[in-house]
Amino acid sequence: MTQGGEHIPELVRSDTVHRGYPFDVTVDTLRVADGREVVRSIARHPGAIAIVARDEDGRWLLVRQYRHAAGRWLLEIPAGTLEVGEAPEVTAARELREETGYAADRLERLGGTWMAPGFCTEYITYYLASELRPDPLPHDADEEFAPVERLTLDQLRAAVTSGAIEDAKTLVAMQLMALRG
Amino acid sequence: MTQGGEHIPELVRSDTVHRGYPFDVTVDTLRVADGREVVRSIARHPGAIAIVARDEDGRWLLVRQYRHAAGRWLLEIPAGTLEVGEAPEVTAARELREETGYAADRLERLGGTWMAPGFCTEYITYYLASELRPDPLPHDADEEFAPVERLTLDQLRAAVTSGAIEDAKTLVAMQLMALRG
Repeated sequence: MTQGGEHIPELVRSDTVHRGYPFDVTVDTLRVADGREVVRSIARHPGAIAIVARDEDGRWLLVRQYRHAAGRWLLEIPAGTLEVGEAPEVTAARELREETGYAADRLERLGGTWMAPGFCTEYITYYLASELRPDPLPHDADEEFAPVERLTLDQLRAAVTSGAIEDAKTLVAMQLMALRG
Repeated sequence: MTQGGEHIPELVRSDTVHRGYPFDVTVDTLRVADGREVVRSIARHPGAIAIVARDEDGRWLLVRQYRHAAGRWLLEIPAGTLEVGEAPEVTAARELREETGYAADRLERLGGTWMAPGFCTEYITYYLASELRPDPLPHDADEEFAPVERLTLDQLRAAVTSGAIEDAKTLVAMQLMALRG
């Protein structure tokens, strides 16, 4: 099978070996171009959204959240996982209210990225939220958050350079905003 | 337990439910600040490297690779998974030779990011490779690659804007290079 003239390995079999939150796992066997079979574990994730939201002074709204997989608190742009069948705009509108206390009258798609395409199906869609107004929703009860932090673009850049921000989606969003001009 | 004055949820238990490649899965129970227990699946990944390599004309070396988790061919900077106990510089030197056919006399750390810290331990370390010379290693036999592509920075930016590049680590690397100046 080909895609744009390029070979697509054949999926020989796929077995679901774990069902969990926020991902399931399949073990997939692929037949590659030379005919051999390779086996890969795949994390099946529903996808997520991430949001660039800035206050009236142009400061970025960031959330500091405990991330067990990293074993530390990370400073990140607001983000959240899609619920099953949910449109990403709906997720974005809800997560913005939950994580920052603001609703946006305008959401603009900035782009999208695969986060770990070697083994994980997670695709993040990025939005620019504007025309903000206070309209909070309660946080997910099972997440630990500190109050929202506000950083100017210069402060944000300095935090990346110093290593104080090490979250991939936050750097992707910065790059998408820079390209938007 | 606290970290920098912030609460760290207690890990109540962790059960390995899957061993695979390139990740294992644990199901972890955490006790959060209000005393409740939450359960999360965590993909345990050894970490990876990604490389900014440019030719004598300043063009970025990119690889087009079939990514089964994305179901498509993606255009990305060279990257690879750490072997157990391997220093990331060693992985970077090997993967650059395998994926581009060049060795670098100089590798400089640009930064690092967590790719999906909500559920995955993968941390990517980014390197700038310079002083390149031809010195190929054979590819991993179980990966499907097309020949290396060379893009100017303007072409790279246009490919992101058009959606032709949707790989998170590639955008992170662009942002790290922009901040390096």
